[in-house]
Amino acid sequence: MIPLSGATRLNIIVGDPIAQVKSPGGMTAAFAKQGVDAILVPVQVDSADLSDLLSVADRLKNLDGIIVTVPHKIDCYTHCATASSRSDFIKAVSIMRRRPAGGWHGDQFDGVGFVRAMQQKGVNPEGKRALQVGTGGAGSAIAYALLESGVAELALHDLDLARRDQLITRLNALGKGRVVPGSADPTGFDLICNASPAGMRAGDPLPVDASRLVASQYVGCVITVPVITPLIAAARALGCVNGNGSEMYDALQQSMLDFLLTPMEARA
Amino acid sequence: MIPLSGATRLNIIVGDPIAQVKSPGGMTAAFAKQGVDAILVPVQVDSADLSDLLSVADRLKNLDGIIVTVPHKIDCYTHCATASSRSDFIKAVSIMRRRPAGGWHGDQFDGVGFVRAMQQKGVNPEGKRALQVGTGGAGSAIAYALLESGVAELALHDLDLARRDQLITRLNALGKGRVVPGSADPTGFDLICNASPAGMRAGDPLPVDASRLVASQYVGCVITVPVITPLIAAARALGCVNGNGSEMYDALQQSMLDFLLTPMEARA
Repeated sequence: MIPLSGATRLNIIVGDPIAQVKSPGGMTAAFAKQGVDAILVPVQVDSADLSDLLSVADRLKNLDGIIVTVPHKIDCYTHCATASSRSDFIKAVSIMRRRPAGGWHGDQFDGVGFVRAMQQKGVNPEGKRALQVGTGGAGSAIAYALLESGVAELALHDLDLARRDQLITRLNALGKGRVVPGSADPTGFDLICNASPAGMRAGDPLPVDASRLVASQYVGCVITVPVITPLIAAARALGCVNGNGSEMYDALQQSMLDFLLTPMEARA
Repeated sequence: MIPLSGATRLNIIVGDPIAQVKSPGGMTAAFAKQGVDAILVPVQVDSADLSDLLSVADRLKNLDGIIVTVPHKIDCYTHCATASSRSDFIKAVSIMRRRPAGGWHGDQFDGVGFVRAMQQKGVNPEGKRALQVGTGGAGSAIAYALLESGVAELALHDLDLARRDQLITRLNALGKGRVVPGSADPTGFDLICNASPAGMRAGDPLPVDASRLVASQYVGCVITVPVITPLIAAARALGCVNGNGSEMYDALQQSMLDFLLTPMEARA
């Protein structure tokens, strides 16, 4: 049973549309499981009204956290007083908490969730060669997280070559693993990551050539609907260790929970 | 189990402080019981920030209703495009819903809840003589509701004589039942109503002289903590039909639920 009274601490998820988000139920249940009297509720706000909402949010006395979804991730990043280096890299946040000094600290865990789901399957990305398809918002976050987690080489594949090359340049400037252009051919890679929408709709082409997958590869996919995309189905058929969008989401939720529940004295 | 997802419709209760309010749990459970996917959450906002919050609330796409508690009832009344005649009388609202034409319609059910709790005990106020102690915000609302429900005579008792006399003048101008000054002596009245804080703290004097109560009188009290005030205890000892603050609150909550769930096409 969700606790709910005047003393329940408030967290909101802002987006437009909002009906599709799943975190209100999941995060609120997770708060309750940890014995925290807090709730996460959906707030549907137009982009034109976001800055006024954030201005009020600054001053609400029982609001502790803000989760951010489309189309507000960039504007919320701008509103934050500080952000994690991974958020500074992609110039977007998906979560905000209060700072001891006032204002908000932003972060985002899309990439962290992907890596964490992989690690929970016993796969260590350190020193590995990874192929990632998709270089949009989620793709940028996951590429950053893969480099942070120690992959030795990251190949990026995207039909939008300009976007792909721009991200490659920016990632190489970090001085972590080597980032190169990739293709739909997974041959020779240890980790295969789909960060593109391919697989959301019936009839979508597969993001990589599944006929060339081998059982020793880890295959991860960010798509949550359907959970079992054709890529994940192919990986399972081959016996690949794999991580679907739902498992990534669960790992992401745990990271968000840890972030929101960090005691004020332990925050920067 | 409270339903909670991105599609859950949002209602808020605004106040400062807010931790003491009980309606988030009660109203949300009531929504669920009626099969409505909606929630009521506490929002603690300073008086200085209320107008900005209301300005944003006007534009939120999934916010359907606002419950209002201290100290915002008058400012929220001012923000409403329209209000019920009982809210116009006391110049305060405790609840707001969207109007088909845009903006908010305000109402308040403190008095209605008192009368409804009485009626649920089988007591019909029509033609009765009532003594009411307390002429503040709740007292004004209850006095108005008692006259609306048909009491023939209403005697008001308050240590603040100026406030009492001003309310008497305004109530008599309505042209309903006769309103006169009263005292702490309940002799001769059918209905005894405590709308003052007397009974909240141990050692408070009783609002009326309980030694003069008789079993034929209805005794109602607005105090919710403690539920059984010395006045209610005295009434029970005598065998009076009685209504405590908790019963009044339950009746009030049903009125608020009906108000918020009125279909848009049935709203003025």
